[in-house]
Amino acid sequence: MSVLDAIAPPVEVPPIAGAGREARVALLGHGLIGSAVSRLLRTIANRGPRPLRVTGALVRNTRVRTDDAPHPFFASPAALFEPAPDVVIELLGGLEPARTLVLDALGRGIPVVTANKRLVAAHGDELVRAAARSGAAFRYEASVIAGVPFLGTFAARPLAAAVNRVVAIANGTSNYLLTRIAEGLSFAAALDEAQRLGFAETDPSRDIDGSDAADKLAVLARTFWGWSVRPNDISTTGVSRLGAIELSLAREIAGSIKPVAVAQQIGGNGSLFVGPAFVAAGDPLASIDGVLNAIRLERTGELPLLFSGPGAGPDVTARTVVDDVFEILAGGASIRPQPAHRPTLRQHRPSGWFISLGGSLPETAEIADLFGAYGLWAKRWSEPRPSTGGRTVALLTHSCSPAAVDAAIARLKSVAAIDAMLLPVLEAGRE
Amino acid sequence: MSVLDAIAPPVEVPPIAGAGREARVALLGHGLIGSAVSRLLRTIANRGPRPLRVTGALVRNTRVRTDDAPHPFFASPAALFEPAPDVVIELLGGLEPARTLVLDALGRGIPVVTANKRLVAAHGDELVRAAARSGAAFRYEASVIAGVPFLGTFAARPLAAAVNRVVAIANGTSNYLLTRIAEGLSFAAALDEAQRLGFAETDPSRDIDGSDAADKLAVLARTFWGWSVRPNDISTTGVSRLGAIELSLAREIAGSIKPVAVAQQIGGNGSLFVGPAFVAAGDPLASIDGVLNAIRLERTGELPLLFSGPGAGPDVTARTVVDDVFEILAGGASIRPQPAHRPTLRQHRPSGWFISLGGSLPETAEIADLFGAYGLWAKRWSEPRPSTGGRTVALLTHSCSPAAVDAAIARLKSVAAIDAMLLPVLEAGRE
Repeated sequence: MSVLDAIAPPVEVPPIAGAGREARVALLGHGLIGSAVSRLLRTIANRGPRPLRVTGALVRNTRVRTDDAPHPFFASPAALFEPAPDVVIELLGGLEPARTLVLDALGRGIPVVTANKRLVAAHGDELVRAAARSGAAFRYEASVIAGVPFLGTFAARPLAAAVNRVVAIANGTSNYLLTRIAEGLSFAAALDEAQRLGFAETDPSRDIDGSDAADKLAVLARTFWGWSVRPNDISTTGVSRLGAIELSLAREIAGSIKPVAVAQQIGGNGSLFVGPAFVAAGDPLASIDGVLNAIRLERTGELPLLFSGPGAGPDVTARTVVDDVFEILAGGASIRPQPAHRPTLRQHRPSGWFISLGGSLPETAEIADLFGAYGLWAKRWSEPRPSTGGRTVALLTHSCSPAAVDAAIARLKSVAAIDAMLLPVLEAGRE
Repeated sequence: MSVLDAIAPPVEVPPIAGAGREARVALLGHGLIGSAVSRLLRTIANRGPRPLRVTGALVRNTRVRTDDAPHPFFASPAALFEPAPDVVIELLGGLEPARTLVLDALGRGIPVVTANKRLVAAHGDELVRAAARSGAAFRYEASVIAGVPFLGTFAARPLAAAVNRVVAIANGTSNYLLTRIAEGLSFAAALDEAQRLGFAETDPSRDIDGSDAADKLAVLARTFWGWSVRPNDISTTGVSRLGAIELSLAREIAGSIKPVAVAQQIGGNGSLFVGPAFVAAGDPLASIDGVLNAIRLERTGELPLLFSGPGAGPDVTARTVVDDVFEILAGGASIRPQPAHRPTLRQHRPSGWFISLGGSLPETAEIADLFGAYGLWAKRWSEPRPSTGGRTVALLTHSCSPAAVDAAIARLKSVAAIDAMLLPVLEAGRE
């Protein structure tokens, strides 16, 4: 009998070696992911390295439980922490009471697994310190690209983790939206579809405005470099202003627009960026479509590492959370980031810009002349297209400072009634 | 000061937490990779979690050492194992004396790190048992896709490791050759170039004939499913019979030919395949070019996981080996595969065939009729091209048994003087 026999779809794997006394697991939260974890733990209860039993779940209201979970529900954590369970799994989401409860558990020496990126992004330093103080393991593999295990791996391997730049497509909702808009849907229709398919939440604002990706980038920067950054420190742009025309123009000039999160280390400084960016067609990240997520780890002069896979979903997240539990029960350590320090953050300097101009456009040659006066040179122009309010054209520029781009566009706006959208160009993986 | 400050190219990372008494490392072998490990260990000697010191290196001939390594060289292992070092790193390559020495070290309770895929493929069961018996850690992360850490990760995470199929491009030499031949070089010119650039060894036969990839596939199948298979159990085809014409025809029918290794679990049975295969252009594996390596982990009904990065090279391998040392010094466990058992192996059943036919070809319609009589239906035909001995054409078929394909081609050969090359079509990642 295998730990996996009972997980649909069936996968045959022999039993996991080792056995021991029953491990007691307490759940904080029992929403979509909490229920999936609870189901998964029931399914594999007697098949893992140790028998697993859920001692109970903390919920806001114990009267509205409708599923068939055999464990009790509590509205207060006291009964869950006393006697101490072997592992606490935090799936409440949000900052409080998650932070207080996780600190409480770690303070009592109880290992904690969480999938809560907001919590780890905002309070990671404090939580990691609390875990180190008490010696309790603290793992959060599911907080970034939930279906792809890599955070724990790199935290334990300092040479592999010695990278200069991390580029991620870490928010499946916004990646799905841009993929579908590129296929011709309006933003509203794409969002509606994503919500119908379960790829977007009822309130998708944190996904769409980049907050969710900023949380994940803060976790990545802490793990790889020990950067102590708050999600608010990260310059973040959402995807909602993108329409079919920009995505189609991007394709015309050989690329696509992807919602990326970029952390870069240059000298003693760093830069952080979250937002849509132009990705050249040859770049493997350009083909990370739909809800697929990916992370690329770059090291100057070397071939980059690219990891891709599912980034969300209750079952995917539940498996990663329970694997963290298995690692802890097998004696594995915390996901221990590099020691915390505050980096000096500089503005993100992309290798060029994707500029989309719409309205009463002058001739392309005229725009090119005007831009040239500011040191802004185009690598590629799209054909101008008719659009609401006139015409739309897109261009791809060579590297140029944000100030020069802003000045050039301000000048253009002073001579013509146009709107401009400016996206950074993602540098290629190999430097 | 960071463990990484002194590694070129410079990467700024704060110091790794923790410290302890000096860790003594013994090297078995001091060739290209051994020297790279020795250099790396010197560079980071006092900057890791524990100060590191190489106590000596085992070499065949102690008189020919010319580099400036400050540690002694020995022609016999006795002085290296007594007193026991904290870790032994095996980089001799090949089966003996590597096997005997690793068993000796593990038997004495000394942890061992190896990059030796031949050793782990052929004797993995025995080595894993020896490690379990003495409790000494045994790690071999660099044995498969040396620059991408994943073996240890999945061995510790049974739910993530519950996959149905593993597809790898795990041999950089053959991938480089096919990439360059597709760009127009002859096999001989591509091999010459690869050797000049250090991408192929002086004797590249184990890379070209698929033996190296078969070793890696045996390690993968053991890690994910506990399969106890010898590399000789794996049906293996090399890349040397492929020429520019097949690679160009593959592109014409929207794909490329890649040197893949595939392990699949179906019901209680398994199949293993190593050789060139047709990969559709939309498949991310089709763009794994040059010396890049990749592994895709597939689970029915889910988005696959894809990991790619450098698969070889002394510096890349040395970093992975030393990260294994760090994991062991930090108390990390062995890379523990699933418990060993012998699978029932079936013939690999691809989803279709890429067939290239050359010589005195009948008309395409005639070939199609003849093939149809055997249940072999083409999805796509290339245009016939003039070639030595007549014309060459390629087709892509629907799924069909190997027996039917063989019968159809035998029948065609009985009516026309032709040669045929048959490659499986790689199924898409999502099932």
